[in-house]
Amino acid sequence: MKKIINDPARFVDDTIEGILLAHPDWLSPAGNNRSLIRKSGVPKGQVGIATGGGSGHLPVFLGYVGEGLAHGVAVGNAFASPSARQMLAVTRGVNAGAGVLHLFGNYQGDSLHFEMAAEMAESDGIRVVAVKASDDIASAPPAEWQSRRGVAGIFFAYKLAGARAAEGADLDAVAETAHYAVANTRTLGVALDACTLPEIGHPNFSFADDEMEIGMGIHGEPGLERRTLMRAEDLAATLVDRILADLPFANGDEVAVLVNGLGSTPVEELYILYRSVAPLLAERGIAVHRTYIGEYATSLDMVGASVSVLKLDADSRRLLDAPARSPFFQQSGAGR
Amino acid sequence: MKKIINDPARFVDDTIEGILLAHPDWLSPAGNNRSLIRKSGVPKGQVGIATGGGSGHLPVFLGYVGEGLAHGVAVGNAFASPSARQMLAVTRGVNAGAGVLHLFGNYQGDSLHFEMAAEMAESDGIRVVAVKASDDIASAPPAEWQSRRGVAGIFFAYKLAGARAAEGADLDAVAETAHYAVANTRTLGVALDACTLPEIGHPNFSFADDEMEIGMGIHGEPGLERRTLMRAEDLAATLVDRILADLPFANGDEVAVLVNGLGSTPVEELYILYRSVAPLLAERGIAVHRTYIGEYATSLDMVGASVSVLKLDADSRRLLDAPARSPFFQQSGAGR
Repeated sequence: MKKIINDPARFVDDTIEGILLAHPDWLSPAGNNRSLIRKSGVPKGQVGIATGGGSGHLPVFLGYVGEGLAHGVAVGNAFASPSARQMLAVTRGVNAGAGVLHLFGNYQGDSLHFEMAAEMAESDGIRVVAVKASDDIASAPPAEWQSRRGVAGIFFAYKLAGARAAEGADLDAVAETAHYAVANTRTLGVALDACTLPEIGHPNFSFADDEMEIGMGIHGEPGLERRTLMRAEDLAATLVDRILADLPFANGDEVAVLVNGLGSTPVEELYILYRSVAPLLAERGIAVHRTYIGEYATSLDMVGASVSVLKLDADSRRLLDAPARSPFFQQSGAGR
Repeated sequence: MKKIINDPARFVDDTIEGILLAHPDWLSPAGNNRSLIRKSGVPKGQVGIATGGGSGHLPVFLGYVGEGLAHGVAVGNAFASPSARQMLAVTRGVNAGAGVLHLFGNYQGDSLHFEMAAEMAESDGIRVVAVKASDDIASAPPAEWQSRRGVAGIFFAYKLAGARAAEGADLDAVAETAHYAVANTRTLGVALDACTLPEIGHPNFSFADDEMEIGMGIHGEPGLERRTLMRAEDLAATLVDRILADLPFANGDEVAVLVNGLGSTPVEELYILYRSVAPLLAERGIAVHRTYIGEYATSLDMVGASVSVLKLDADSRRLLDAPARSPFFQQSGAGR
């Protein structure tokens, strides 16, 4: 294991301590460092957005707390759900009187704990609505899209719902926006090599030297198929074909595209992938309004990438274009 | 070699094509895709900043063309200098009547070609001043700092000189700012594993499983010493001790700190490193004004990190805090 760490068991706590030292104006611990709230708080009467999940996926989840994004985050161990107690602390911390959206990826532990936290918060008189990202098309058939795993596409849910909350919309409207984002985002990824959990110390599965896996999950969950390493052009076609067929996206649609690196893949390769994604969308009459290329949801040092496509309408386009800011993601309003 | 690429020989051109497709409002080719100018141009009478160098280091160099940053870039093959002709095209493209700053890393090929380009530009009547980044303290003794290699610290030179140019300063003032940045920045890195050039197909040198190299250059140039893998805390102490002694930095100084990932190191580990850098600076009475943590200058898929420290004065603090924007780097004026 070649990592810049101290004790493997301190991986998450050391990371958070470093983040709090590096960005002192950004986050406040709500009781402890595993429940973090935006220091600028939630303006009175604004809907709070609470998120959370396992560590090892930066910028997911913590990096999407910011202006025009989420307001608080519960931080679990590497690849493990935070507790209901942590989520409750975050829920209380981001409630400014207008209720709280729980926005997280669709995994069993996270779902269970957020549900428990919501019940406890409701008994405090805090209204909570939950929306789960479930964009990974490799994990269930299209008709069962709501049972799929959440992966990089959750970025679009943060961006849209965060902008809607910042506009002052009520909880139902913010939840509706988050639901729009997750219902209209499709993601498919590819892994070229496995990642190593610090406390385990060796890769969690193995690949042959010429092998890749289409659809592997961000915790190494099984994907759709193992294949011989493909050219970027062929890989793009495989990913785009499946993504477009899934929603389905159609001629005349306008979309945003996210090409995400899983941790150890250089950004040059993400652009090489996008180079082939762009003409495939153009051929089908799908217009790209905005692109995001980089590390938006990682899996420690996994080698690989994913492509996410969000279908836009007038509302979601406005919300996507709104400014947003955290130490992990910045977007000014103008330009692309 | 596990990369998302097409033909290895097309690595750079495919990357650039992807970048131009992903960010259509950003860059214009000056003749061809290897000489790129900011689409918004250089306002008449403003100093133009031209940069360039080998590929494989994104966001260096191309990613630092933007608002409040550089104005044009010559793009070489992987780890290879662009030609004088490309640099001349960029120099012409960014000249708005007030002359051009050549800002690049101190490597032999780049220096030679930028010098030839400057001579040709001068014979066109374009005044050119060159400033070279030479921040890598592993590459020569302190007294010979101007002969050192340029690495991640060039980011500070782009940031400060770009802000100064945007303020409307003349060429001598912009060059003075760039010189301030390079003279007051010190960087030291560590490599944990080698990178693979696409056209070569295997790592360019080898590491034992428990080995790291302090001071290795971003093209794999030899560093100061091979060591057994260290804990992040000990590594931070080694890097910070050498960096602070080199300028030297002193009690009462105010600085900016960049913790840079070399390509395949997860950002979590960069924060774990910073967690130990911060108290070491505080102990010596050095105040941190602003931090930058992430991938600012990579080396394809090299595993490792570097720490850069810039000593600030009133002018450089103002310039560092100014807004800047490119698809690879965004900073709004406010907050940290």
